[in-house]
Amino acid sequence: MQRTLVKDALAAAAACDALLLQGWVRTRRDAKTFSFIELNDGSCLKGIQVIADSSLPDYAHIEKLATGAAISVRGRLVPSQGQGQKWEVVAESITVVGEADATYPLQKKGHSLEFLREIAHLRPRSNLFGAVFRVRSRLAYAIHRFFQERSFVYVHTPIITASDAEGAGDMFRVTTLDLEAPPKDADGRVDATQDFFGKKTFLTVSGQLEAEIFACALSNVYTFGPTFRAENSNTSRHAAEFWMIEPEVAFCDLDGDMTLAEEFVKYLIRDVREHCAADLEFFGKFVDKELLPRLDFVLEKPFVRCSYTEAVELLEKSGRTWEHPVAWGANLQAEHERFLTEEHFKCPVTVYNYPRAIKAFYMRANDDCAPGRETVAAMDLLVPGIGEIIGGSQREERLEKLRAGMALHHLDEKSYAWYLDLRRYGTVPHAGFGLGFERMLMFVTGVGNIRDVIPFARTPGTAEF
Amino acid sequence: MQRTLVKDALAAAAACDALLLQGWVRTRRDAKTFSFIELNDGSCLKGIQVIADSSLPDYAHIEKLATGAAISVRGRLVPSQGQGQKWEVVAESITVVGEADATYPLQKKGHSLEFLREIAHLRPRSNLFGAVFRVRSRLAYAIHRFFQERSFVYVHTPIITASDAEGAGDMFRVTTLDLEAPPKDADGRVDATQDFFGKKTFLTVSGQLEAEIFACALSNVYTFGPTFRAENSNTSRHAAEFWMIEPEVAFCDLDGDMTLAEEFVKYLIRDVREHCAADLEFFGKFVDKELLPRLDFVLEKPFVRCSYTEAVELLEKSGRTWEHPVAWGANLQAEHERFLTEEHFKCPVTVYNYPRAIKAFYMRANDDCAPGRETVAAMDLLVPGIGEIIGGSQREERLEKLRAGMALHHLDEKSYAWYLDLRRYGTVPHAGFGLGFERMLMFVTGVGNIRDVIPFARTPGTAEF
Repeated sequence: MQRTLVKDALAAAAACDALLLQGWVRTRRDAKTFSFIELNDGSCLKGIQVIADSSLPDYAHIEKLATGAAISVRGRLVPSQGQGQKWEVVAESITVVGEADATYPLQKKGHSLEFLREIAHLRPRSNLFGAVFRVRSRLAYAIHRFFQERSFVYVHTPIITASDAEGAGDMFRVTTLDLEAPPKDADGRVDATQDFFGKKTFLTVSGQLEAEIFACALSNVYTFGPTFRAENSNTSRHAAEFWMIEPEVAFCDLDGDMTLAEEFVKYLIRDVREHCAADLEFFGKFVDKELLPRLDFVLEKPFVRCSYTEAVELLEKSGRTWEHPVAWGANLQAEHERFLTEEHFKCPVTVYNYPRAIKAFYMRANDDCAPGRETVAAMDLLVPGIGEIIGGSQREERLEKLRAGMALHHLDEKSYAWYLDLRRYGTVPHAGFGLGFERMLMFVTGVGNIRDVIPFARTPGTAEF
Repeated sequence: MQRTLVKDALAAAAACDALLLQGWVRTRRDAKTFSFIELNDGSCLKGIQVIADSSLPDYAHIEKLATGAAISVRGRLVPSQGQGQKWEVVAESITVVGEADATYPLQKKGHSLEFLREIAHLRPRSNLFGAVFRVRSRLAYAIHRFFQERSFVYVHTPIITASDAEGAGDMFRVTTLDLEAPPKDADGRVDATQDFFGKKTFLTVSGQLEAEIFACALSNVYTFGPTFRAENSNTSRHAAEFWMIEPEVAFCDLDGDMTLAEEFVKYLIRDVREHCAADLEFFGKFVDKELLPRLDFVLEKPFVRCSYTEAVELLEKSGRTWEHPVAWGANLQAEHERFLTEEHFKCPVTVYNYPRAIKAFYMRANDDCAPGRETVAAMDLLVPGIGEIIGGSQREERLEKLRAGMALHHLDEKSYAWYLDLRRYGTVPHAGFGLGFERMLMFVTGVGNIRDVIPFARTPGTAEF
């Protein structure tokens, strides 16, 4: 007999005389002549109630089943007499597949998130983490659907790279050299020419520059892959390994880029609201009471667009005392971003046209800037509760202006010869952005620590499992 | 005006008075009072013909446009009078967005694949590589669709790992230590406790063991992410960085695993046959004349299942002389696999129940084996032209048998405590497999070198772009 998933049994249109359910015991309680078993198989948040009559063969074994045990149940799907469930299962046979004894760490009582991180191999069996990882999966799928429905081509940019894409933070070195006795060159320095790739290599921090190559051939592309930062920062929002989505669009300017980012964020929220309704209700109940109103609010109205210069004026006029002083030319800090999105506008805000000096070399220089007020066509999308969730820009497509940007950032043209070629041959205006996948997942689940939305988080000092 | 993609214009249901096309000039030829421009934007293989009349403003510029130049065309979509195309565009204005001069490396003439690898930043603009990367994208999406439609949960297993999953080949070290002057411990050895994660870390070779964790909680899961091998092998089928898909299914045995693998492969072929028809026809014409018949043949009938022991008998009885001798207990080599799938059965073959000694510790021991003929519930799916494309197994779910397997392979139980826990608490039969994404892509495109199906291939000595 084919296995039926619990989620399909719970959503059944009609009763059924014979079905096979397989999963794990969440709870069991005894009545006089039978046992109630809540069976969960991870296919959805809810378990299904199984009624095991004492006349069943092996009942002596069944009535000792503990939380965590694996069982196979054959029986009938019948309308439930209990509250809050449409169907239950009257067992005709129950096979104990795998026992769990009293040392099973996931007993009914609540556990701290810190403890659950230590047993990351068992936590997906809990309500919270089952829900998180189902939503993670659906969110990833929604990302692909969004882009594929719009004729974007998915590109796998390299993980191992010899270039430091944007000088964007510390990188992990990748090597096959023997660290105990690395080969040395004539100057007594480690000889990278003898490394696997014949040069120094690192883990990528962004696939953007390579995505631009593909946008300049296939028009609309996106990446979705792991990226890395070797930053020694132990915060609830940073991990050394995380997934990032980077669309890149040919014949697109900053305005089109901001529109795409807004449509994207709304599509993702709408998708998980629809497809993970029960899991999101769980988060709204037990993780963050404001979650569902906040998500629905984001869907309702257009995001505000506010230039960096306007944002600085708003912050200056706010009358607040800032920990980090506000001044044109300085980066916006978390406190400023939170003020804009949570207090002033009370909705998602796209801040655009940032000072050139604090942004990357590849961002497109805006024309007609006042002297000392040079800006680039960059944008950051800020959302309540999280802050920056998307960062993007129109890229500099003009060869000579790109060269000027590289000189400004002290970059060596030789290392970027191929990137300059994109401007030499059939150059086009193009733009893109990056979305941190885990930031988005935190936003749609309300979960506050990035360690709790990654199956096995990599943070300073931690690479377990 | 909104941009229309060439593929949408070519598939239009009716003529249209005003549309905007943007892309790159593939060819241009002159007639008396007008120019024909073939415009391609990467959205599909074919370009669309644009007719530029000499009365257009800026015609002096337009009639000098060279291959590779970027243009914006406003005009009317009208029925084509030429052969082989339904629609063409009569330009009402053409804007030159980016020029390409005679140094543009992708002129009309054919180029060798080796040369195109050197200009990997431009090759996606060619017919062949445009097609390869569109199919790559669709194949990736089809993989997600297959699993999501079947209620599988997508899991991101870690890229950086402290464990050598199966002892499956050489690994890349990941470190932030200064290779010139690494910190040393009391014994004078490199002190890995001072590395970023407080221990030695590597790039993953497989996410299987972590996927098992999730299958034992959510029932049906799959991974799809990059994996790495630091093997110094320069062949047409090996890359140091490649993508792998690893489904893992709870309450599933080897038989169910083989069925899933067969359904999966057929689904993927059917999907790209349908959604990338023009690109696949191009491959069938210019890359491999046998491609389309081979793919259709694979769809038509059930794959053969053949035990390892039967396979060895077939090879022995074949009367062939083998480079690698055939004997029960030895691994099947490429020549043996090719004989089985290409000559003997002439269709895809799943070989199962391999000798225990040559397979990984986690594979389930078959009961009732003859002494000296111990086997495990492993399977390899072989396809014509490629050889092994999928490798999988039922996993050992019995705690004591798993321990015996670990002892046999000299593995330290302490490093696998969490893996053993899965057998201590609610253990269930489960099975899964791995599909090399690029191998599958080579199979469906007929492209013979893995370097030509990866945007930027990483192989020994090569990490360009």
